[in-house]
This record gives sequence, C-alpha cells and structure tokens, in this order.
Amino acid sequence: MADSRFFNKSSSFTLREIAEATGSVISGGNINPDMVIEDVAPLDSAESNNLSFFENVKYKDNFLNSKAGACFVSAKAAAFAPDHMALLVSPYPYKSYAIAAGHFYPDKKPDTGISQSSFIEKTSEIGDNTTIETGAIIKAKAVIGKACWIESGAVIGENVILGDGVRIGSNAVISHSIIGNNVRVYPGACVGQDGFGFAIDPKGHVKVPQLGRVVIKDYVQIGSNTTIDRGAGPDTIIGQGTWIDNLVQIGHNVQIGAGCIIVSQVGISGSTELGDFVAMGGQSGVAGHLKIASGARIAAQSGIMRDVPPGEEQMGSPAVPIKQFMRQVATLARLSKKK
Amino acid sequence: MADSRFFNKSSSFTLREIAEATGSVISGGNINPDMVIEDVAPLDSAESNNLSFFENVKYKDNFLNSKAGACFVSAKAAAFAPDHMALLVSPYPYKSYAIAAGHFYPDKKPDTGISQSSFIEKTSEIGDNTTIETGAIIKAKAVIGKACWIESGAVIGENVILGDGVRIGSNAVISHSIIGNNVRVYPGACVGQDGFGFAIDPKGHVKVPQLGRVVIKDYVQIGSNTTIDRGAGPDTIIGQGTWIDNLVQIGHNVQIGAGCIIVSQVGISGSTELGDFVAMGGQSGVAGHLKIASGARIAAQSGIMRDVPPGEEQMGSPAVPIKQFMRQVATLARLSKKK
Amino acid sequence: MADSRFFNKSSSFTLREIAEATGSVISGGNINPDMVIEDVAPLDSAESNNLSFFENVKYKDNFLNSKAGACFVSAKAAAFAPDHMALLVSPYPYKSYAIAAGHFYPDKKPDTGISQSSFIEKTSEIGDNTTIETGAIIKAKAVIGKACWIESGAVIGENVILGDGVRIGSNAVISHSIIGNNVRVYPGACVGQDGFGFAIDPKGHVKVPQLGRVVIKDYVQIGSNTTIDRGAGPDTIIGQGTWIDNLVQIGHNVQIGAGCIIVSQVGISGSTELGDFVAMGGQSGVAGHLKIASGARIAAQSGIMRDVPPGEEQMGSPAVPIKQFMRQVATLARLSKKK
Repeated sequence: MADSRFFNKSSSFTLREIAEATGSVISGGNINPDMVIEDVAPLDSAESNNLSFFENVKYKDNFLNSKAGACFVSAKAAAFAPDHMALLVSPYPYKSYAIAAGHFYPDKKPDTGISQSSFIEKTSEIGDNTTIETGAIIKAKAVIGKACWIESGAVIGENVILGDGVRIGSNAVISHSIIGNNVRVYPGACVGQDGFGFAIDPKGHVKVPQLGRVVIKDYVQIGSNTTIDRGAGPDTIIGQGTWIDNLVQIGHNVQIGAGCIIVSQVGISGSTELGDFVAMGGQSGVAGHLKIASGARIAAQSGIMRDVPPGEEQMGSPAVPIKQFMRQVATLARLSKKK
Repeated sequence: MADSRFFNKSSSFTLREIAEATGSVISGGNINPDMVIEDVAPLDSAESNNLSFFENVKYKDNFLNSKAGACFVSAKAAAFAPDHMALLVSPYPYKSYAIAAGHFYPDKKPDTGISQSSFIEKTSEIGDNTTIETGAIIKAKAVIGKACWIESGAVIGENVILGDGVRIGSNAVISHSIIGNNVRVYPGACVGQDGFGFAIDPKGHVKVPQLGRVVIKDYVQIGSNTTIDRGAGPDTIIGQGTWIDNLVQIGHNVQIGAGCIIVSQVGISGSTELGDFVAMGGQSGVAGHLKIASGARIAAQSGIMRDVPPGEEQMGSPAVPIKQFMRQVATLARLSKKK
Repeated sequence: MADSRFFNKSSSFTLREIAEATGSVISGGNINPDMVIEDVAPLDSAESNNLSFFENVKYKDNFLNSKAGACFVSAKAAAFAPDHMALLVSPYPYKSYAIAAGHFYPDKKPDTGISQSSFIEKTSEIGDNTTIETGAIIKAKAVIGKACWIESGAVIGENVILGDGVRIGSNAVISHSIIGNNVRVYPGACVGQDGFGFAIDPKGHVKVPQLGRVVIKDYVQIGSNTTIDRGAGPDTIIGQGTWIDNLVQIGHNVQIGAGCIIVSQVGISGSTELGDFVAMGGQSGVAGHLKIASGARIAAQSGIMRDVPPGEEQMGSPAVPIKQFMRQVATLARLSKKK
C-alpha cells in the first residue's frame, strides 16, 4: 500500500469497473465481478483486496505465492494462477495495470494557484488554472498555457511558449523553446541552451551563434537532469509522445520522431535524426549527422557510427546487427578459452 | 597549504596526538613525538611542518623528494623514506591521512540559522540547530532533523523526512523520500521523482503511477547532479554508508546494500539489487532485474547483463569475469597483429 | 531566418564587409561586392539575401540546391557551386561562417542591472555593468568582475572569484573556485563541490577533506549539468579556451590544458592530466592518475587505462591506437562470419 503521506488514492473500484476501464476479461477461481478492489500493489506485498499484475517470468514465484485478490495476467499465465485469485486476462497485463493504477492514483496537480513567492514578469501570460510554486521564475513575454504546473525554482525563459497541461519540475531551466501540450519536464533538466557549436581554432575556438530553438511536441516526457540543446539554425525537435529518461544528452539540430524511448544516459550527437518508435538502451550513443530509421532498436552501451535501417536491432561499439554481435561475442569467447 | 579564503584550519597537533588519533606508529629518522604539525599537504608541496601520506607507488618520486616533516607510510615504504622525515607507520596510510586531515579541517556547517530569505511552509518541522540558507524551499509537512544544513536553492518536497545532521546541496531537489542521519546530498542532485515507468503503446506510452519512495539510510553520500528515482511500488533503497558519485542514475525499485562505492556516470536499471560493499567503476551499467552479490567489483565502462556472484570481478560489455576479459583482449590483439 | 522572439539581429552587411571581417575571398558567378546580406541561414532554408556555408560533404545535395545568395566554401567546392551563388572562398568555411554569424548575432548580455529580487550578501563585491537576474544568489565575500551576467537561480559561493565578462547560467552552483575572464558556465553545472575523496573502510568509508579549489582560466566554456570537483589538495585546473560540453564529469585534481574539446558525457577520473588541444569524444572515459599528452584524440566511448602519447588517436575500451582498433574490429568480423 502506498505511503499516504506522499500518495492520495482517489477511490476504490469493483472488478467489473476495472475490467471495463482496461478492456480485460474477468476469469479465474473467484469471479464475483462486484468484488471491491481497494488498492494496487506489487505481487509480493499485495493483500486480498489488492490488484496486481504478472508479466515478467522472472517473478513467477512471486506470482504463485501472491495473496493478491486480483491480478492482470496473460491467457497463458491464467492456466497456472493460484486458485484464490480473480484474474483479469489481457494481452498486455502490464499496460492494463498501468491504466488501472492510473485510476486509483490519478496524476493531479495541486490547486494552489500562483504563489506570492514566485517571480513573474508582468509581460508574461499565464493561462487559467495554472499553478506556479514558490521560487519559480517566469521571465518576460513567456506564454504559459492553461492548467500548467511550474514547480519551485524552475526558470522559464523569455518568450518561451508552454502549451496546456505542461508540468515543469523544480529547478529545471527552459529557454528558446516552443513546448506543446501535456509535456512533462522533470527536475533539473536544461532545455534550450545553445549547444556545443564552434569552429576549432588553435588561437581559440570560434563560437557559432546558435539561432534555432527546441520544439517539443505533445505528450513528451523529459527526465531529470537531462540536457537538450537548441538548434544551430534548424530547430531541435522532439516528436509526439517520445519519452526521454534522466541524464540524457540531445545535441543541437537533433530531430526525434514520435513514440521513441530514450533510456538514461544516452547521448545523441548534433544533427542526427531518429524516426518514430526508435528505442535506445541506457548509455548508448549516436554520432552526429546520422539517420536512425523508424523502429530501430539500439542495445544499451552501443555506439552507432553509421545510419541504421528501419526496424534493425543493433549492439556493440561500434554497433553491428545484434545477431552479428552475438556471433562475435561467441567467437571471441571460444578463441580465448583457457586451454 | 589550503586557501584560507575557502578553508579554516581548526588547530595544530603534535606528532604524538596524530599517532594516537589514527592508531599509527611513530618511526623514522626524526622521532620527537612533540614535534608540532601545522597542516596537511600533498607530498610535492608539503613543508617541514606539514603532514603528508604515501600509498600509490606512482608517486614514489614525489615521496623521495618531499620536504614533508611527517608522512603516513606503510611499513614497507618506511624502509626507503627520506632521512629527514618523521614517519607514521600504518597499514592503511591513506585512511590514516583521511582521519588526520579531518582533525585539521573538520566538516562544519555554518551556524547562520534560518535565513529570512528562505521559503518555509508553516506546516513543516525544523529541528534545533539547523541551518537553512537563502533561497532554500521547505514545502508543507516536511520534517527536517537537528543540525541539518539546507543550502541555497535546495527544494525539500512535501512530507519528506530528513534525519539529523543531513546536508542538502544547493539546487538539489528532494521529494517522496525518507532520509536517515548524516546523509549528504550534493548540489543539483534529484532524488524521489517518479522514474521511467510506463507500458509501451504505439498510440502513446501509458504511465504507470510510481507509488514507492526513496529510502536512504545513514551516512550515505549522493553526488552532484545524480538522479535517484523513487520506487514504482516497492521503495528504492540506498544502504548505510554507500557512496554515490556525480551524474549517476539509479532507477526505480533499485536496492543497494551497505558500504557500496558507485563511481561517476554509472547507471543502474530498475529493480536491480546490489549486495553490500559492491564497487562499480565509472560509466559502468547494469541491466534491470539483476542481482549483483556482495563484494562484487565491476570495472569501469562494463555492461552487466546477468547476475554477478559474490566477490566476483567483472569487466567488458557484455561483462565477463575479469581474467576471461583479459584473455579476450590478449587473444584479439594477437589475432589482429599486423603481419 | 532566426525566430525574432528569441534572437535579435544586429544589422545587415555587404559581401565586402563580410569578406574583410572573415579574411575570405569573393568569387563565383555573382560578384557584386556591395550586395547586401540580410541574414545567415542553413543551406536548405537560405534565401537569396542570406549567407550560408558548405563544408561537410554529407550536405552536398543541400549545397547544390541551395538558394543562398552567398556561401562560404573551400576552393575545391567553389568549382562546382551553383551559378547564382556569390562565393566567399576560405580554407575554413565553417570557421568563417562562425565569425560572420557572430557579427549578425553578437552574444549580448541584457543591461538590466541588478534585480531587486536577487539575494546579494553585503560583503560581496560586484563589478560595474554586471547583470544579476531575479533569484540569483551571491554569498558572502564573493568577488564578481565587470560586465558579468549571473542568471536566475545561480548560486555563487562564499569567496568565489569571477573575472570580467563571465556568464553563469541559471541554477548553476559555483563554490571554492577562482574563475578567469570571459568564462561561460551553462545552466545546472556544479563547480567546486568536494569530490569523491575517501579511504575505503568496511566500518564506514572515511572522508578525506578536499582542500583544493577549481581554477578556471580565460575563455573556458562549461556545459549544462556538467560537474567539476575541486582539488583534494592541489587544484583542479581547466586551461584557457578549453570547451567542455554537457553532462561531463571532471574529478578532483584533474588538470586540463589549453584549447581542449571535451564532448558530452565524458568522464575524467581524479588526478589525471590532459595536455593542450586534447579532444575527447562523447561518453569516453579516462582512469585516474594518467597523462594524456597534447594533441591526443580519444574516440567516442573509448576507455583510457594508460598514458597516451602526444598526438595519438585512440579508440576502444580498453583503448588502443585507432588503426589497431580498426584491425581488431575487422579481424573479429572476419572470424565470426556466418559460414
């Protein structure tokens, strides 16, 4: 059960309500659809009136021994579920759980309005129902949409535009950016500063004025302490629904498509383009001026030095197609075996 | 000698006092135990009334040529020390130096009390003798222990609990966390935000409410701009006396044991568990849902994709036991030699 | 054309003025030296009164199809330039463009003086013509030079010294540092905190007081969310004109020479020394106590475990000379080919 000091449960739901909200099918030993589910919980701590999920086979023992009253499962896992459990069968148990948990614990901004201890320039515009916390700074001519949430210590630069429903985390710094609706920027992220643009010169590198912006489409998430440089001339663009984790570096002019997943500590060099639904594993990197086509999947710690074709999975530094990488690993292990 | 604008020396000590405080044994050419040591200094800049240490053989020349009046050394190094040097023989010269230097320069918080330019919600609780600097923000119902030090611009979120003697660096952001005694969080670190938890969906990834906390035990250190995500359901836990360097990423549900050393830019993926006294080298990474047993040592830049047994040293990406890695490196070098 | 909400063009220039300012030679089909250039722009969006540049052959098609009225080119590229284009021939087209663009869009601090909503200790000194923004914090006895620009939420620690023309980004945190002239620190960077200095002990690691400073020479750039630890006894030193990108970690006692280029997410371990004009690619790392000689070039993601000779190019983890690395990659690819 979640710590009530930090999390407020909205209400309880019947099994039937949950099945309807998630498009899952009630099944299993206990099939009273009016059973009341009080909360969500992980398999190993769930109680008889809690809802859980089982998807990763690593946690099969937790599943078999769980006291959860109800559980999202695949049709396959339903066959060996504990007898006492009400099952909610779904092709995507984790996704169904995500939706259900979102009903129990909706993401809700505080309705505290605009703090008298925030610093807001008069020439800025603030939409209705927006919350601005203590110590937040809104600079001249910034335009903040409706129902936004600007947390303590965040700095919104001059002329920055935020859409509706945007949340900017504490001490994040935004400049030179046009941000869509329902975007979330986590604490400490820096977005819009001029990037690493210079001409090398032994007498002193020459800075190239960085004259583009950062354009962030709707439903994007940007993790804590991540840095996104603005474009040098073109814009840096983050496509709709792309999720970026913590401590990621996005260089100037990078264009990222829709629905991408960029895991923590990834680095994407300047002017590289990612298609849609590209997945980049943690600590992987891409050189500049490359094209990573839609659906490509880059394994953790890989280093991409060439364009990647659509849907291809690559691994290694320098990266190669993943089967080739696995053969290389096996070959080297065989050749260096102790005799 | 340390720059007195930044560092205040507490007092001077005799050789005997230092030997007693560090459990080391006075030896060497000059053995007046009442000799007064005025300061600590590195070998190459130490003067005749300064105390230094010699442990890393790379610095043997510095040791042989040092003017230091006294020096922590191993019994072995004592044999070839310069004649003029008073020796403090210790099995761990660097540790003895650390203890001695801590006497010369104790870590002391300023006694400036609570700044009138800080922002403190009335429903929070502040312990005795706590310092809160200009621009720090303490949100509703936060509980701050005794003798804490909250630096400028730090944001302590609602209901966060800090034990006694905790220091939170400038512009660090803490939320959803229960923090023990004598913990130090460095500037810019972000602790407690919800992590990268979502179910992938082509129509838009579905956020999974992150309902756990970050629990930090006593004597933990968390480096600058490091990010620690709160748990998804279970808590993210950092064990007693674990030291985490700068720019490290700790994912949701990660459990780290006691006394671990996590070097800069390491990434630990969600739900992975580290035992006690695990050491992870810089820029290494661990995949999710793994167990790294106590005493394991992971070399810099390694990528861990499987569980690691107790005490095992691993290297490479993907990582293998270190001897195996070294054989692979040698094999590849031999096979690719220019003919 | 740059978004005028974010960027102010200073004026227009004739082709002759630009040629003189950049030391380039007018050539090509259209050679009216009094032609007025209104703006700079990338090849693919430039219009007939815009100035662009062509250097990277990847963008040859953009060059051939560009509507740019004038363009910096190499003598070689001049031979196949579109007829309509006025050419400015330069041995370094990108550098010439950088200089020209800097004339169109000079880097200019706002002349808003000292915000009444900043927090400045009375014992600090602020030079003439310095701008201090809302929410910036200047602690006791800090000395700020002339024409500096301290952005919102930045924290300048006690006794810190900034030279003239220094710009400190929003929410950056500076302590224990002596900073030269014309240095720029980007948002969220942390400079001067004590580094990862401790003696390992199973009963609790022992902190070593970190008694050095960070010394930053003139014209250095430090990227967003980068961390630079102060020295343990000696200083951490960043040499003149060195550029450091975002999310870089610089350990205690590191000494970096002049004119180095340190790309994003690099990690440099404690007590390592870099000569002048060293280039380190993104996500590369260097172990502690090493010497990387002047002119060395380290490829992205490389891991340096030994000293590197002057001018040598290395790659791999552990790194080897780049030709050797390429042979290793080719050998492994050949040996593991599918049969």
